[in-house]
Amino acid sequence: MKNAIGREIPEYIEGFGKLEPFQGAWKKLRKGWMDEPTIPPPNKAKLPHQSKLCETLEEAIRKTSPKDGMTVSFHHHLRNGDEIIVKSIEILSKLGIKNITLAASSLNEVQDPLVQYIKDGTITNIWTSGLRGELGKAISSGILEKPVVIHSHGGRVRAIHTGKINLDLAIIVASAADEEGNATGTHGKSAFGSIGYAGIDMRYAKQVVIVTDNLVDYPCIPLSVTQNFVDYVVTVDSIGDASKIATGTTRITKSPMDLRIAQLAADVIEHSGLFVNGYSFQVGAGGASLAVAKFIRDKMKRKDIKGSFMIGGVTSYCVDMLNEGLFTTIFDVQSFDAAVSSSLLNNKHHIEIPAALYANPFNCGCMTNKLDVVVLGALEIDTDFNVNVITGSDGKLRGASGGHSDTASGAKLTIVVCPSYRGRLPIVVEKVSTVVTPGETVDVLVTERGICVNPKKPELEEKLKAARLNVRSIQDLQQEVAQITGEPKPVKFSDKVVALIEYRDGTIIDVIRQTID
Amino acid sequence: MKNAIGREIPEYIEGFGKLEPFQGAWKKLRKGWMDEPTIPPPNKAKLPHQSKLCETLEEAIRKTSPKDGMTVSFHHHLRNGDEIIVKSIEILSKLGIKNITLAASSLNEVQDPLVQYIKDGTITNIWTSGLRGELGKAISSGILEKPVVIHSHGGRVRAIHTGKINLDLAIIVASAADEEGNATGTHGKSAFGSIGYAGIDMRYAKQVVIVTDNLVDYPCIPLSVTQNFVDYVVTVDSIGDASKIATGTTRITKSPMDLRIAQLAADVIEHSGLFVNGYSFQVGAGGASLAVAKFIRDKMKRKDIKGSFMIGGVTSYCVDMLNEGLFTTIFDVQSFDAAVSSSLLNNKHHIEIPAALYANPFNCGCMTNKLDVVVLGALEIDTDFNVNVITGSDGKLRGASGGHSDTASGAKLTIVVCPSYRGRLPIVVEKVSTVVTPGETVDVLVTERGICVNPKKPELEEKLKAARLNVRSIQDLQQEVAQITGEPKPVKFSDKVVALIEYRDGTIIDVIRQTID
Repeated sequence: MKNAIGREIPEYIEGFGKLEPFQGAWKKLRKGWMDEPTIPPPNKAKLPHQSKLCETLEEAIRKTSPKDGMTVSFHHHLRNGDEIIVKSIEILSKLGIKNITLAASSLNEVQDPLVQYIKDGTITNIWTSGLRGELGKAISSGILEKPVVIHSHGGRVRAIHTGKINLDLAIIVASAADEEGNATGTHGKSAFGSIGYAGIDMRYAKQVVIVTDNLVDYPCIPLSVTQNFVDYVVTVDSIGDASKIATGTTRITKSPMDLRIAQLAADVIEHSGLFVNGYSFQVGAGGASLAVAKFIRDKMKRKDIKGSFMIGGVTSYCVDMLNEGLFTTIFDVQSFDAAVSSSLLNNKHHIEIPAALYANPFNCGCMTNKLDVVVLGALEIDTDFNVNVITGSDGKLRGASGGHSDTASGAKLTIVVCPSYRGRLPIVVEKVSTVVTPGETVDVLVTERGICVNPKKPELEEKLKAARLNVRSIQDLQQEVAQITGEPKPVKFSDKVVALIEYRDGTIIDVIRQTID
Repeated sequence: MKNAIGREIPEYIEGFGKLEPFQGAWKKLRKGWMDEPTIPPPNKAKLPHQSKLCETLEEAIRKTSPKDGMTVSFHHHLRNGDEIIVKSIEILSKLGIKNITLAASSLNEVQDPLVQYIKDGTITNIWTSGLRGELGKAISSGILEKPVVIHSHGGRVRAIHTGKINLDLAIIVASAADEEGNATGTHGKSAFGSIGYAGIDMRYAKQVVIVTDNLVDYPCIPLSVTQNFVDYVVTVDSIGDASKIATGTTRITKSPMDLRIAQLAADVIEHSGLFVNGYSFQVGAGGASLAVAKFIRDKMKRKDIKGSFMIGGVTSYCVDMLNEGLFTTIFDVQSFDAAVSSSLLNNKHHIEIPAALYANPFNCGCMTNKLDVVVLGALEIDTDFNVNVITGSDGKLRGASGGHSDTASGAKLTIVVCPSYRGRLPIVVEKVSTVVTPGETVDVLVTERGICVNPKKPELEEKLKAARLNVRSIQDLQQEVAQITGEPKPVKFSDKVVALIEYRDGTIIDVIRQTID
């Protein structure tokens, strides 16, 4: 069957059941959400003064009575520095557990060793926001029998809340914790900042284990995780290397072309009509998008504009803008470099938020619903403004859905920034290979070759033209790019579906098929 | 049938179903809790940038589609200063709604006007921690057909979590809120401090209305209530008079006898073996109990002891001790005077906590489970150490269960302080008229006539005797008191049950019968 944006979706996947096709970005928010069942959080009880401490991670995992077919969750705030995800799966494998559903908020290159645990049947299902590296390649090559589900950060909360993901065990790393499981990522030698993605896991998992390398005196504050959800606490030598959180994607680009694009995007914001006192702002990490903050900062100072909140993945750049008084508040679901932690710990206007509050579509209004402006990157964007942030030019998994579709759906102005082509590969294309964010939620594309406004927003186009910005049709741009790059060699796919791209509301917006090398 | 402490409990109450008799303080925590079903929190959705603002409280209530038989919840942080509970019921009554279940975290004299809405059938069920004033008298006189359920603060969370209380509408007052419903009690002209009891209501109520007299620019921080749970926001002229939060029960006594008892209780703590660095401490409000803090403060300074956390209903006295460095942390579920708010707002070691974290018995360990010492008051205590904090000498409802049984069950050392008699009425009695807190959770009684240790704690008795404290048997004390006061005139009761006293785990520890005047 075809979904609302014309993508071919299987009606049924063995082991998953019937798929619900994407119907449009806001359709299920208008109606339909009321029919979604939700699941009850588990009941638990402890006797007063009963100890939760375990000697080893293995002891803690054993105590949770792991079993075949279980679902295990992790959060990815340590990104490429994490040491606990692979270790935990290794322990479960040694204990002989099979058919695990891995429900990580995202996965990075550091989790490449998981490939062997897929091969040996320890892991048979994966839910995640991102897949990269050898793991991404292996999945694209069809290593898993059942497709991975790629969700957004908001969609993950919805999936847990509605029971699509039903957590047996949540393993939550913390850079500081006490013996009862009150825990945080804001201080300690491995401080990684916000622990926001684990907020839903601690509430719904039947068993919760806190893993820390820094057991502190009771009580451990701030209460990023609270003891009433925690079954066991274990101290290990190291939870990971927080210096590896910040990677290329979380630093401001030095590429002249990216800086040029960022400058243009800042011009778009300035003339959008939304660049006024009290506006709110989010920039994605990576490439040109983070660099937009640099130009916006200058413009805000020049025009004496004070914003209200910044939100999302938070970099030191956001913290600087908070400290300069350019924004009143930062809401932090994920800290993109370890230096952010001290601000989160010490500045009461820099606030840790759970992913539910950040972006869950099924509640009374998440914070991304309140955004004025968001600037996002793209691996590809097409003439319908659909965006791909998950598969590379080789058709393989090498990205993350993250908050891309969540913020695009909520913001009044969604800007995608990217070069029009990279090497000999077009980025602005006729049809993206994989849709993560539907074009109806994208307002403007900014490239080095001009600015394209979604035809849904004629008033915005007028404003940008009046400001003498280089506005042009996305079809023109795409054809120009095609002439420069030529037609790229098509990627060969089999019929096998290796990943489902779940839109934030749980419908399927696209699928990814097995690559044939 | 008789429950584990020999109280006569009906097996069945029309409209309530089968009652589960109290089995012992920790029995259901050991087993049984796993069979308790929990209910799913509701699903909700809003479109981006959709307004939640209403012009009037009536408009907000109308928008929630109120209906006959609904359950409406309130929190009582404004205590005797609250203006919204009665107003909301008045509006529902005007809208013709009948058979409301009122689920307030507690009720005070200021809610006396509810009597008329019980009489006219608007309210037909009540769940609350406390009942006093004309309302308490009316209920004791049998004005309601079905019995009120008296719960503890922790028990209320359990009851909502397990669906015994199923909230259709939560009306949450806030001294500051923004247009999306982020809200707090920590600042604004009507600041009342922690909003901890409403933490569970916002998560489970099908509709949530924030009522404020201080709409601030988005975002309203701190995020005591978060927008993802809030359906509507309304601004009114006044939510109430925060100066009426502090009443006699929240100020340190000037009564020489109470001060003497408090001094003795402080001596008990000093010699209990628990008065060491890192100990944790809670004092109830009222009478001698709060005064114990005064003497403990002196002792801590003299002995250079630094505690870890204080918890509970928080007074300025606790804040002073935090500021002096005598404790590292305050956990605040309810602020007992308006002056506490600025500390809660500005001191990151003074932390707002929801009632679930404070005292819910059915989770992975609430904070009262971690208490070393708690000092509590009593209206009556009997020779089995059972405590009554709910009915007066006339047999009528005039108190509150509060955190009494929660903290008694969790603390390593539970001390009850009270005079042995008041006027011509004995307080230490052979059998309390109503049991709220079972004697097995009470370790020591301190009166002006001596200290009685629960025979369950012979080692503690040895320690106190070694310190030359005036330790004596509770039977001796009770008989001495009986000789002084004589036998009080027995109160006349009918067979009709007007209130069920629910223990924190949901079992019935006692019932209150209709008084015959």
